[in-house]
Amino acid sequence: MPQISQKGIDMPASPIRKLTPFADKAKQDGKKIYHLNIGQPDIETPEIMLNALKSVPFKVWAYTPSEGTASYRNKLAQYYNKLNYNIEPTDILVTNGGSEAIIFAMQSCLNPGEEVIIPEPFYANYNGFACSSDVVVKPIMSYIDNGFALPSISEFEKVITEKTKAIAICNPNNPTGYLYSRQELEALKELCLKHDLYLFSDEAYREFCYDGREFISPMHLEGLEDHVVVFDTVSKRYSACGARIGCLITKNKALYQTVLKFAQARLSPSLEGQIAAEAAVDTPDAYFTAVSEEYTARRDTLVSGLNAIEGVYCPNPGGAFYVVAKLPIDNADKFCQWMLEDFSHDNQTVMMAPATGFYSTEGAGLNEVRMAYVLNQSDLKNALICLEKALEVYPGRQV
Amino acid sequence: MPQISQKGIDMPASPIRKLTPFADKAKQDGKKIYHLNIGQPDIETPEIMLNALKSVPFKVWAYTPSEGTASYRNKLAQYYNKLNYNIEPTDILVTNGGSEAIIFAMQSCLNPGEEVIIPEPFYANYNGFACSSDVVVKPIMSYIDNGFALPSISEFEKVITEKTKAIAICNPNNPTGYLYSRQELEALKELCLKHDLYLFSDEAYREFCYDGREFISPMHLEGLEDHVVVFDTVSKRYSACGARIGCLITKNKALYQTVLKFAQARLSPSLEGQIAAEAAVDTPDAYFTAVSEEYTARRDTLVSGLNAIEGVYCPNPGGAFYVVAKLPIDNADKFCQWMLEDFSHDNQTVMMAPATGFYSTEGAGLNEVRMAYVLNQSDLKNALICLEKALEVYPGRQV
Ligand SMILES: Cc1ncc(COP(=O)(O)O)c(C=O)c1O
Ligand SMILES: Cc1ncc(COP(=O)(O)O)c(C=O)c1O
Repeated sequence: MPQISQKGIDMPASPIRKLTPFADKAKQDGKKIYHLNIGQPDIETPEIMLNALKSVPFKVWAYTPSEGTASYRNKLAQYYNKLNYNIEPTDILVTNGGSEAIIFAMQSCLNPGEEVIIPEPFYANYNGFACSSDVVVKPIMSYIDNGFALPSISEFEKVITEKTKAIAICNPNNPTGYLYSRQELEALKELCLKHDLYLFSDEAYREFCYDGREFISPMHLEGLEDHVVVFDTVSKRYSACGARIGCLITKNKALYQTVLKFAQARLSPSLEGQIAAEAAVDTPDAYFTAVSEEYTARRDTLVSGLNAIEGVYCPNPGGAFYVVAKLPIDNADKFCQWMLEDFSHDNQTVMMAPATGFYSTEGAGLNEVRMAYVLNQSDLKNALICLEKALEVYPGRQV
Repeated sequence: MPQISQKGIDMPASPIRKLTPFADKAKQDGKKIYHLNIGQPDIETPEIMLNALKSVPFKVWAYTPSEGTASYRNKLAQYYNKLNYNIEPTDILVTNGGSEAIIFAMQSCLNPGEEVIIPEPFYANYNGFACSSDVVVKPIMSYIDNGFALPSISEFEKVITEKTKAIAICNPNNPTGYLYSRQELEALKELCLKHDLYLFSDEAYREFCYDGREFISPMHLEGLEDHVVVFDTVSKRYSACGARIGCLITKNKALYQTVLKFAQARLSPSLEGQIAAEAAVDTPDAYFTAVSEEYTARRDTLVSGLNAIEGVYCPNPGGAFYVVAKLPIDNADKFCQWMLEDFSHDNQTVMMAPATGFYSTEGAGLNEVRMAYVLNQSDLKNALICLEKALEVYPGRQV
């Protein structure tokens, strides 16, 4: 039997998918499951994007340049420059989803064994990308009590070593929904300049900011041009997760040329995906207004509903479509599994993601779950009732 | 200035793209270029596939399972089982192009510093995938004089060490067009079993076999189930390079589960790509017959035309749509650049890929070029005339 590589053994399985067999079983048993466990929005993709897909003009479905088509990159630059990113099309490299942008950045910036600091809880797949790139994630704790704000700079300083080469943030955050303030970003800027660190900014949820709050990107900060690497994706912005179109943005020319070499090896992002994504840039503002209103209403329903349940605490996040809530439970992994295996209310139950999967510190997040508000409000209300009933009878309840 | 990783520095730039600036300049100067340098076929994508793309039924462009949709994998299994691969849908994992399948396999099978043996000349991007996976490619030489047949097993034995974990072949071969025989594959099987090595089989050009010759895959060999990993893609089969749909096939369950973890981290292959690729499986046989006739005629035109030029030698390959030809030149890199910069005949010239980019042994392939016969016959004939004229006047001509 030939070997499996050590990296293959160490590679983390998706923490969310661990529950899939139990969900499958529950479905077989005829239970209705409210899926709050994954970030697959139910929102329809803009028509303008789907129409572009359905009317692709080509007869030969050909490769595009490895960095993406000129026409899509031009259009994207317009989109970003409306947001005052002040970039050129040549600062943009189109990727197979935001995921590939993250992998390219880790491989281009960090040597094996070097470290990227990430406030936890964080998007669980960063662990997978780090593992596949032989990069080490150094978590620093953010806390539910202040809504998962950026840890203080002194906490970063404590873990910075010679091996530290980057700091990664996700803004607005998955899983916490936290939206970083200009002050927080300015502080990160000073830190990155002081230690000459890259600042990776995962902006998958940029368009999802609520309560009139402004989105600030490290791209808006002057003097950090060589240090900032933005990861973006059409997945959430246009509810087009299956299109697999993302991009990496950097004004650092040497880094761009390096990333391009990784992109050249894998040849090309998808042609039709880029055509559709280019059309999507013209999505009318009304689409985003409607989506934002819908998500705000859902968030309000979910957050207020959660806080109304005894023993539950959930901060009110400023962006994305996730919340992390504290529950009166012993162990989130056990609880989420129990919800699928052993619980039902009116033959219904809720699937959530145990927050443990988003922490890399052992034992952290044991009484927290992440919920994605990707269901309509009536489903959310039913899910809240289920959760309340469940917490009343859960054998591992803690106060 | 933050660092570039060592891997990023070492990552090879695409050898073919080195010539791009010279080609751009030649175009600006009004020269017509016959592009024999890249494997982008001019053949039209089957209508059945494009129609499926244009009539995608979804309103939410959603993620698919990380391993691909059940329905596409079922359909693919039918395709492979017609070829007697004797596999289950659960042996197939859908990837972002064949490229991603190769990366997944290298990362899942080999530890940093471990070695994969590949007969050279080989597909240049294997170097990039190896670099990004910290894997070492050990080339063994194949020779134009016997049409680039598989090197003898004793040549493999000479470079096998404790670090050797895999042998990779591309069949039919890019760049040589060589089609491996059953005997050659049987010999590889014994070798892989003896040393417990993976056998990676890149079958991107499977459908392109000429002169009635049969395609044999390691999948056809009994007793090698745990060792074989097939890389496949719709890129060439359906002239759908821009769809970015490929797959990895293995019957080794432990390996499959490992690859799946890498696939989960990047979430999903494209939804619309899988829908179109599923439809493509029903491409009528007539399409392949016509394509095969066209390529056979092109190959015959190119190979006989090349061999008619004084000092040129080109073996007649059994598959794919490439040839490697020996030219009476000092240095293929210089010659190919000279063709773009300094030569024209009736204001036309030819772009070819220097074979040096396909060898990893320093100095090998200096008098060889790779040509892709992805142009119609009349263009090929014109390209041949250009090449003949060019060789007559090239200052670095050697006899
Ligand atoms: C924070 C974050 N980054 C990146 C991604 C990757 O998305 P994609 O590869 O679909 O662009 C996701 C997807 O859920 C995400 O939540
Ligand atoms: C031998 C070989 N393998 C793999 C690939 C990768 O193709 P893709 O990623 O488009 O499936 C190519 C593309 O030219 C190739 O020639």
